[in-house]
Amino acid sequence: MSIEHNKTLVPHNINELKPYVAGKTIQEVVEEYNPTQISKLASNENRLGRSEKVEGAVQDALKIVHDYPDPLSKRLRLEIAGKLGVELSNVMVGSGSESILAGLCRTFFNNRENLVTADATFIGVFVQAKIRGIKLKKIPLTNGYRFDLKGMLNAIDEHTKMIYIANPNNPTGTYVNKEEFEWFMKEVPNDVLVIMDEAYYEYASSNGDYPDVLSYGFENVVVLRTFSKAYGLAGFRVGYAVANEEIIQYLIKTKLAFEPGTLGQAAAEAAFKDSEFLERGMEIVQRGKEDLYSYFDEKGIGYVRSLANFVMMTFDTEEEAIYFTDEMLKKGVILRRINAFGLPNCVRVTIGLPSEMKHFKESLEVVLGK
Amino acid sequence: MSIEHNKTLVPHNINELKPYVAGKTIQEVVEEYNPTQISKLASNENRLGRSEKVEGAVQDALKIVHDYPDPLSKRLRLEIAGKLGVELSNVMVGSGSESILAGLCRTFFNNRENLVTADATFIGVFVQAKIRGIKLKKIPLTNGYRFDLKGMLNAIDEHTKMIYIANPNNPTGTYVNKEEFEWFMKEVPNDVLVIMDEAYYEYASSNGDYPDVLSYGFENVVVLRTFSKAYGLAGFRVGYAVANEEIIQYLIKTKLAFEPGTLGQAAAEAAFKDSEFLERGMEIVQRGKEDLYSYFDEKGIGYVRSLANFVMMTFDTEEEAIYFTDEMLKKGVILRRINAFGLPNCVRVTIGLPSEMKHFKESLEVVLGK
Repeated sequence: MSIEHNKTLVPHNINELKPYVAGKTIQEVVEEYNPTQISKLASNENRLGRSEKVEGAVQDALKIVHDYPDPLSKRLRLEIAGKLGVELSNVMVGSGSESILAGLCRTFFNNRENLVTADATFIGVFVQAKIRGIKLKKIPLTNGYRFDLKGMLNAIDEHTKMIYIANPNNPTGTYVNKEEFEWFMKEVPNDVLVIMDEAYYEYASSNGDYPDVLSYGFENVVVLRTFSKAYGLAGFRVGYAVANEEIIQYLIKTKLAFEPGTLGQAAAEAAFKDSEFLERGMEIVQRGKEDLYSYFDEKGIGYVRSLANFVMMTFDTEEEAIYFTDEMLKKGVILRRINAFGLPNCVRVTIGLPSEMKHFKESLEVVLGK
Repeated sequence: MSIEHNKTLVPHNINELKPYVAGKTIQEVVEEYNPTQISKLASNENRLGRSEKVEGAVQDALKIVHDYPDPLSKRLRLEIAGKLGVELSNVMVGSGSESILAGLCRTFFNNRENLVTADATFIGVFVQAKIRGIKLKKIPLTNGYRFDLKGMLNAIDEHTKMIYIANPNNPTGTYVNKEEFEWFMKEVPNDVLVIMDEAYYEYASSNGDYPDVLSYGFENVVVLRTFSKAYGLAGFRVGYAVANEEIIQYLIKTKLAFEPGTLGQAAAEAAFKDSEFLERGMEIVQRGKEDLYSYFDEKGIGYVRSLANFVMMTFDTEEEAIYFTDEMLKKGVILRRINAFGLPNCVRVTIGLPSEMKHFKESLEVVLGK
C-alpha cells in the first residue's frame, strides 16, 4: 500500500498559529548584559512570592504523588464553594484559567458559531479560539482603552455563542464597572455565554465600583479566576470556574481527566485559606501603583490607571515601545511588550516590591533621559 | 435585545460524552467496609512510590513557584533528548501523555478526517477523539486480545489522518512485536500519523521482541511516554512526545502555554536520572507478574500475559466481572473494571508490592471460593 494521499498535515487555522517566541531567560539576560539587579516585571506574578502555608501542604502531597490526583478536585472545590457561598456543583478546577478557557472553546462551539471580544485583551483567548477554528469578532477598545460594550452588543449575531470580557482587562488594567455590567447583561441574549475572566479579581474587588458578578446569579455567566496571580502559585497551574451546574458539568466532562495535579490542588487549598498573605501582597501592589502614577505624572509619561497588579505605559509609536523595553532589559528590568495582545505602542509593567520599583525608576531615567 | 436564539448549548459530540463517574475514594471504602488493609491496584501507578531524588528537586522548585513555569520545559527536554539520542527539537513535554493525545486530536485533524484504532484500548483516545468530533474507526482485537494490524490497515481510507496503537496495550497488556511493527510500517501510507503510545515502555523495553520504535526514524511516527507509571509521578502530570521536528513544533504551538507545571518539570528531571529507583520498581513488577501467572494457572483463572505493570483477568460474563470487582472492593482491594475501555468481561489488576499481592490473593480466595 504505497498510495500517497498527500493530505495537508494540519488544518488552515493551525497552520496560521504563530510559532512561540520565547523571551530571554533570566540566565541569558545575566550572561548578555550583566546587570547589577534583575527585576522580573513582565508576567504579573506576585513578586512577594507565595504563602508559607504552601510548604506543609506540598510536603503532605508528596507522600501520595505517585498516585493520580483526585480527578474532581473535591477538597479544593468544596473550599472555594464554601468561601463563595455557592454549591460544589457550581465550581470546576483546571490547570490554570487558560486551560478552562481552552475548555470553553472546545466544549460549547458548533462549527459556525463565533466569539465576541475586544481587539486588545488576553492573548490566550485569541490563541484558543484560533486552535478551535472559532471565528473571532474583535471590537476595538474605546479611546480610554476600555471595552466597548455597545460595540460588542452590536456585533452579536445569531451565530454568537460566547462573549469574552477580562475584568479588569489584561493588558490595559481598565474595567467594566457595576452599572455597565448590569446594563450589558440586560441587553445580552441569554443563549450567549458571557465569560468574565477575573484573573485579577483579588486586586480589583475592594473597589466599590467593581461588579460582584457572582452575586447576580446569571445563568449564562461563567466567572474565571486563578491562583497564578494574587495567590502567587503561577508555577502550579491552578484556576477555577464558577457557573451554573449544567455548564460546569460540561467543563468537567471535557477537561483532562487528571488536571490539575496533586501538589497544585493541595497548594491552592492552603493558599486560599491564608488571607494574611493575600492582603500583604495586595497592599504592596496598591501602594506601588499609587506611587507609580505620581511618578509617571511627574515625568510626563503616558499610562492607564489599573485595577490589577500591573500598569500599562503608552508610547506614541511602536518603535518607542520597542526601544524602551529593549533598553530596560539591558539594565535588568524585564517588561512585557503587548503587541501580541493588540497594543503595539504599549508596554506592561508588573507592580513589584519597592526594591524592584526603585530599580525600574532608576533604569527608566537613564533610558528615557528624564 | 431580548431575542432568544435558542441555540443548543453544546454540539452533538459533546452532548454524547458520558458523565464522569468517580469510583469510591479510599476514605469511602474505609468508612463503608472497614477492611483490614487497602490495596490500590486500579490505576497502574508505581506501588513502590517515587524516587527520593524528587524531594530535593521539589524543594528547589518551590522557591520559584510564584513565577510561571518555563513554557518550553527546556531543561527536561534536553535531559530526555540526551538520553534518547535525539535533538531538543524532537521532544515536547505536556501535562501527562493524555494532554499530548488531546493535542494530537486538536492539532492535526481536518473536519472529515478519521482515526483508526482498536475497539479495546486506552479510554483517553476514545474521549479525546469524541471531544474533537473525530470519527473513530475501532477495529476489534484478535482472539488473543491483540491489535489486529491487518484489520487496521484495511480500515485506512483517504480520510484517515491518524492511527493509535498503545504498545503495550492498556488494558490488555499485549503488544505489537518487532516483526509486526516493521511489516505494519511498510504498509501504512506515509501521510498517516502513527501514534505509538508507550506509557508502559520502561516495563516492556527489556523484552527482546519489543520494537525500539525510535530507532527506525520514521517521519510519521509519534512516540508518547509518561512519568506517571514506572517513574511514579502520576500526581505531577508530565508526559512527553518524540517525533520529527515539524510535528513537535505544531504540538508546542497548540499546547497550553505553561504546561507542565514548575514542580512537575523539576520532579521529572530528577526522576529521569534515578535509574536505580526505576530498576527496583521494574523488578518488583516482573517478579509479581510471574508469580501471579502461576497463581492464576493453579487456580484456573483466565488472564492475559502482559508486558506492562498490570495483568488483565478474563471472566466469562460481565456479571462475573462486576461481582468479582465489587466483592474485592469490600475486602479493600481496589481493582479496575474496563468496560469503558471496551472489555466488559475483564478486570485489570495492577501489580503491587508483595504485601498487596498477598492481600489480593487472600481476598480472591474468599470471594471466588477457590
